[in-house]
Amino acid sequence: MSVLIVGSTALDSIKTPTAENPRLLGGSASHAAVAASFFSPVKLIGVVGDDFPKKYVSLYKRHKIDLSGLQIEKGKTFHWSGEYEVNMNNRRTLLTELGVFEKFTPHLPDTHKKSSFVLLANIAPALQHHVLDQMTRPKFVAADTMDLWLNIALDDLVRLLPRVDCFVLNDSEAHQLTKEDNIFVAVKKIHKMGPKYVIIKKGSHGSVLSSPKGQFICPAYPLQKVSDPTGAGDSFVGGMMGYLATARGPIDKNIRRAMVYGSVVASFCCEGFGLNRTTKIKRTDIERRVTELKHLTQF
Amino acid sequence: MSVLIVGSTALDSIKTPTAENPRLLGGSASHAAVAASFFSPVKLIGVVGDDFPKKYVSLYKRHKIDLSGLQIEKGKTFHWSGEYEVNMNNRRTLLTELGVFEKFTPHLPDTHKKSSFVLLANIAPALQHHVLDQMTRPKFVAADTMDLWLNIALDDLVRLLPRVDCFVLNDSEAHQLTKEDNIFVAVKKIHKMGPKYVIIKKGSHGSVLSSPKGQFICPAYPLQKVSDPTGAGDSFVGGMMGYLATARGPIDKNIRRAMVYGSVVASFCCEGFGLNRTTKIKRTDIERRVTELKHLTQF
Repeated sequence: MSVLIVGSTALDSIKTPTAENPRLLGGSASHAAVAASFFSPVKLIGVVGDDFPKKYVSLYKRHKIDLSGLQIEKGKTFHWSGEYEVNMNNRRTLLTELGVFEKFTPHLPDTHKKSSFVLLANIAPALQHHVLDQMTRPKFVAADTMDLWLNIALDDLVRLLPRVDCFVLNDSEAHQLTKEDNIFVAVKKIHKMGPKYVIIKKGSHGSVLSSPKGQFICPAYPLQKVSDPTGAGDSFVGGMMGYLATARGPIDKNIRRAMVYGSVVASFCCEGFGLNRTTKIKRTDIERRVTELKHLTQF
Repeated sequence: MSVLIVGSTALDSIKTPTAENPRLLGGSASHAAVAASFFSPVKLIGVVGDDFPKKYVSLYKRHKIDLSGLQIEKGKTFHWSGEYEVNMNNRRTLLTELGVFEKFTPHLPDTHKKSSFVLLANIAPALQHHVLDQMTRPKFVAADTMDLWLNIALDDLVRLLPRVDCFVLNDSEAHQLTKEDNIFVAVKKIHKMGPKYVIIKKGSHGSVLSSPKGQFICPAYPLQKVSDPTGAGDSFVGGMMGYLATARGPIDKNIRRAMVYGSVVASFCCEGFGLNRTTKIKRTDIERRVTELKHLTQF
């Protein structure tokens, strides 16, 4: 089955202590869509300006991403610029030019409205709602978010939670949402807000799932060099949803492996700027790291 | 086989945002010895003053810890007092009274000199050297440390590393020692300083082993409530060494499970002040959590 993915489609200018890369393909939906594409067909919902480089359209197409839901509007593509500190853990935004993204309203082509697997990648909760409003009974809906929406659109986000099966957020966002320091207590509170599955991302420390069938501690693939962590979280959730959409059997049976696959795609994402590394790998590269992670965690 | 453990034996006065507990049994050797005692006989090397409460001697004895290497000197027992912040991650020292610890020189009874498994728990590197100097060909030596020794006794510590099989330190200490932000790069540098096995402790994120047989990502047991993390790292390495000392077969075959056992004992340690919780558990409680961790990490 295919995955419908909505989120931001952007140009990212990224600075790290050792390099600078302007106007790379970025945005939560781009990272998630490419990650998912290794496992299942992807339908992308987003918006770009008429300045959007053709090479990035080709990139999407090489990954067989269905672009019939990608709007091309008069104006500039969303442009984000950020800088990472030496340890790659902290970043600061240098510039945000919303461009055509400012007035984005996602419209679903009829062919998209019955998608079974839906990923509401990081984007304003109001737009995440708007996508769900247009859909007919999806089988499994996952939503990601960021601290910005907790700050400026908390009500919309809280209203979204009962509408999603799986909510994905990082540890500091979980703290911000629940005021709990302990992530396992925070997760309990988040379950009460709606989602059956809650996943807490912890960057290089991996992630944790809480589900009806219990918890799962998902490892991160050990990396000796991180070039650019931008999009790693989006790659994680994208890879997970792509895997889930094609795996046979119930979600509960597949979600652990799905997270490991997502984690591996995220590891590749970190090894290059933007999507530079992710777009160069093959499914066999992913399988190799999944096997390695299996060995790395066995006792 | 038994484990010889040298380290600090202290009275800890611990303050958290919700409670205050004066003069609990503490010190790296106390925590490590009790943790190891669940798996193998323990020989303790340390010093206390003549004010050392009899109830703590009884506690050691209940855990069948051999006290023939515990010196009782005229004067006060080492007393440490510290306070934890709300999130339990940061602590500050309120008071350090070294007492008899100031002039401590570990003397090994003859019966101890041929011990096969030696844990140099956190204590001045000069004293860790002094213990090794008295020993005849131990089979496996592990050493722990703390930031203080990296600050004031770095040369002694660096000279110790070629003398130990396994070096255990936390992520910030690894950074301090190697100036590397990436722990997997840091670990490579530490191997070059001597130890065949390097273990990086990451608190609630678990730990990572680097060994001749590859890496191992060791999970932490998920805790919804941490009462007092003091001694968790000592419990981890103590439990690990206790398990290794009785497990059959080569170290490489056993060290992963040993770390998981250590991790579980550390989880119990965190659930009570000082040794309050650890001293109340049974081997069956440990086995239950090890089985749980197996399930929590499988995919």
